[in-house]
Amino acid sequence: MAKGDRIWTNARLATLDPARSGLGIVENGAVAAREGGILYVGSAADLPSSVLADAEVINCDGRWITPGLIDCHTHLVHAGNRAREFEMRLAGASYEEIARAGGGIVSSVTNLRAADEDTLIAESLPRLDALLAEGVTTIEIKSGYGLTVADELKMLRAARQLGHKRDVAIATTYLGAHATPADYKGRNGDFLRDVVLPGLEAAHAEGLIDAVDGFCEGIAFLPDEMRLVFDAAQRHGLPVKLHADQLSNLHGAALAASYGALSADHLEYTDDEGAAAMARSGTVAVLLPGAYYFIRETKKPPVDLFRKHGAHMALATDNNPGTSPLTSLLLTMNMGATLFGLTVEECIAGITREAARALGRQDSIGTLEEGKQADLAIWDISEPTELVYRIGFNPLHARIRAGHTTINRDITI
Amino acid sequence: MAKGDRIWTNARLATLDPARSGLGIVENGAVAAREGGILYVGSAADLPSSVLADAEVINCDGRWITPGLIDCHTHLVHAGNRAREFEMRLAGASYEEIARAGGGIVSSVTNLRAADEDTLIAESLPRLDALLAEGVTTIEIKSGYGLTVADELKMLRAARQLGHKRDVAIATTYLGAHATPADYKGRNGDFLRDVVLPGLEAAHAEGLIDAVDGFCEGIAFLPDEMRLVFDAAQRHGLPVKLHADQLSNLHGAALAASYGALSADHLEYTDDEGAAAMARSGTVAVLLPGAYYFIRETKKPPVDLFRKHGAHMALATDNNPGTSPLTSLLLTMNMGATLFGLTVEECIAGITREAARALGRQDSIGTLEEGKQADLAIWDISEPTELVYRIGFNPLHARIRAGHTTINRDITI
Ligand SMILES: [Zn+2]
Ligand SMILES: [Zn+2]
Repeated sequence: MAKGDRIWTNARLATLDPARSGLGIVENGAVAAREGGILYVGSAADLPSSVLADAEVINCDGRWITPGLIDCHTHLVHAGNRAREFEMRLAGASYEEIARAGGGIVSSVTNLRAADEDTLIAESLPRLDALLAEGVTTIEIKSGYGLTVADELKMLRAARQLGHKRDVAIATTYLGAHATPADYKGRNGDFLRDVVLPGLEAAHAEGLIDAVDGFCEGIAFLPDEMRLVFDAAQRHGLPVKLHADQLSNLHGAALAASYGALSADHLEYTDDEGAAAMARSGTVAVLLPGAYYFIRETKKPPVDLFRKHGAHMALATDNNPGTSPLTSLLLTMNMGATLFGLTVEECIAGITREAARALGRQDSIGTLEEGKQADLAIWDISEPTELVYRIGFNPLHARIRAGHTTINRDITI
Repeated sequence: MAKGDRIWTNARLATLDPARSGLGIVENGAVAAREGGILYVGSAADLPSSVLADAEVINCDGRWITPGLIDCHTHLVHAGNRAREFEMRLAGASYEEIARAGGGIVSSVTNLRAADEDTLIAESLPRLDALLAEGVTTIEIKSGYGLTVADELKMLRAARQLGHKRDVAIATTYLGAHATPADYKGRNGDFLRDVVLPGLEAAHAEGLIDAVDGFCEGIAFLPDEMRLVFDAAQRHGLPVKLHADQLSNLHGAALAASYGALSADHLEYTDDEGAAAMARSGTVAVLLPGAYYFIRETKKPPVDLFRKHGAHMALATDNNPGTSPLTSLLLTMNMGATLFGLTVEECIAGITREAARALGRQDSIGTLEEGKQADLAIWDISEPTELVYRIGFNPLHARIRAGHTTINRDITI
């Protein structure tokens, strides 16, 4: 065994390794990293002495280590906010009044188009930093507010740039089929032909797309329209995913599964058949309790059906200005438990191992296993349940990305 | 006019001054402080030149200033947590199973009694720091997990000590009548005589009580029992408040009002008569959406009745290990809006001006007005609504307590 660059000892591990049961807990554990990868995970007593020779040894004082957190569904790159609309809604304004005042997704599109790439990056960084401060090491970011070829490219370039501004992995998702802009109202077919499909080609040619997504809903794109987008994605060998069954059951989950999608997301209205299809295809159910909470939805996603069929479940913030201005994966877990009834294990797996699977990155991140990237979060907690139980509290001690410490909190006020 | 020690200029102010409308907004504003008090609040253009002479001038670069935040209802001093119980509940355990496993308030009492004062302080500091990091400058802390005279005193001493460990004002509340301990089961009268009333005397003699509280509920203390406690408080000139109508309507709101209580808190089951009585007596309705959310309550407090009668409404975290492990006043506001339908103005007033009133401190804190203490929160936001709209995001730039800067964030990751 080669020598490790760094060793974290005197730690308790929640490895999320599926070969271990539950959270994959190792008491009196150690993790060794070399060149950004995990060389050893397990009992400190079994750490091969060869690993110890030249490594920097970090005493964790009994703290817990989990995999770095993964937010697998966000619209983090956007311009402006919809706080004014939120205020109007609370003051009793109707959707018509809000629309007349320029609210709704139209305002996000207008703001996005008016912002240049640098402005997008500058506006998105505080949101990104809020997530990183909780130990996030990988974030998915979607396009979908540009809705012209040039503006969709601008969003994806900004998303990629965020990965250079901060030490974080960004997974980009092309969401050209997010909404139909005003000038294509009632002409989805034309919009797909003129914008969504050419945008996919152009963004892929520039290496800006890790996956292709769409919003399948009566107010957005119908299943047959989504098929055109998914067929194009598959021609380029790009994996797909889908905003499915959020407001009604168009059988989006089954559609996604039929394309072997990485994930289907939201899923409040998914039925038994959809859940079964997802389980068969290995399509991850990405649940988004922040949006459920913020829009006061009352129909919960069918967690029992996903359990029954053995579909994987992940959790994400869905960070976006209109329906989920949420920038905390810890709070997302609490909402997953409190609002959807997920167990503690499902919540923690949902923002680590299963979130990695939803990005197709389960071979390199999401668990503490030898050979994976050394992305770690180190916590000031007495047991992992605390990460789910507390509300609005961040016990992160340190964030390790590819073996490097990027946040180390010694709180002083 | 005397010279100011410090002046914050180039700021936008949400003063919450009732003499101004709405949030009491001043664009192009300035605040001047001298010896910890506010010397001037208003338009920067009208700032008397005499104030400018020797003062340190702080350019706020267009940031917003609000009053320092006030959390007017917490059980922040406690030992251990109830994460295990939370996990059992999610895994489907019944209340009986949880009780048999040592859960419920009994576990908080056991943990509290086992902890010494220094341990209580050490365990409570991270929770306190989480609140301070969001610009909180005053916190109310209750006793009520000791349930012996000695242990109640220990809790209150720990609460007072927190105000020396950190630059924050602590308002202590004696909550001896929180629950009946196991050895007094079915003998509330004896418990009041042996513990609650002597504890009140002893704590007051030591200067540990700013107000007296109780939990009026079928599972706790009945109205006639609470009257004994309130009568004793009044004999000592101590103001009272009440946990009222949370799980059923025992007319606790009206009871509190009849004693001229500072506040009645929770209030999910309060009726029209109770709301009217509170408005007449000036008793503040302290709403606690964190507990409502965490215990999955479905009955909302009657916000419309409080509005109809003109009762003041405040918001607080109710931070406690069993029903509200919440340490964010910003999130409390979002929950107040999202779950209870409060307006943005009601939310922001609820954690500043009205929270001050709930503590009887409306003459010295809670708004930006000349003569009050210079407790300020300075925010990186474009409008105050953002403080309510965002979820799990902390835009605090600086926290000023009695004129001194105690937190100043220049984010670098
Ligand atoms: Zn989304
Ligand atoms: Zn309480």
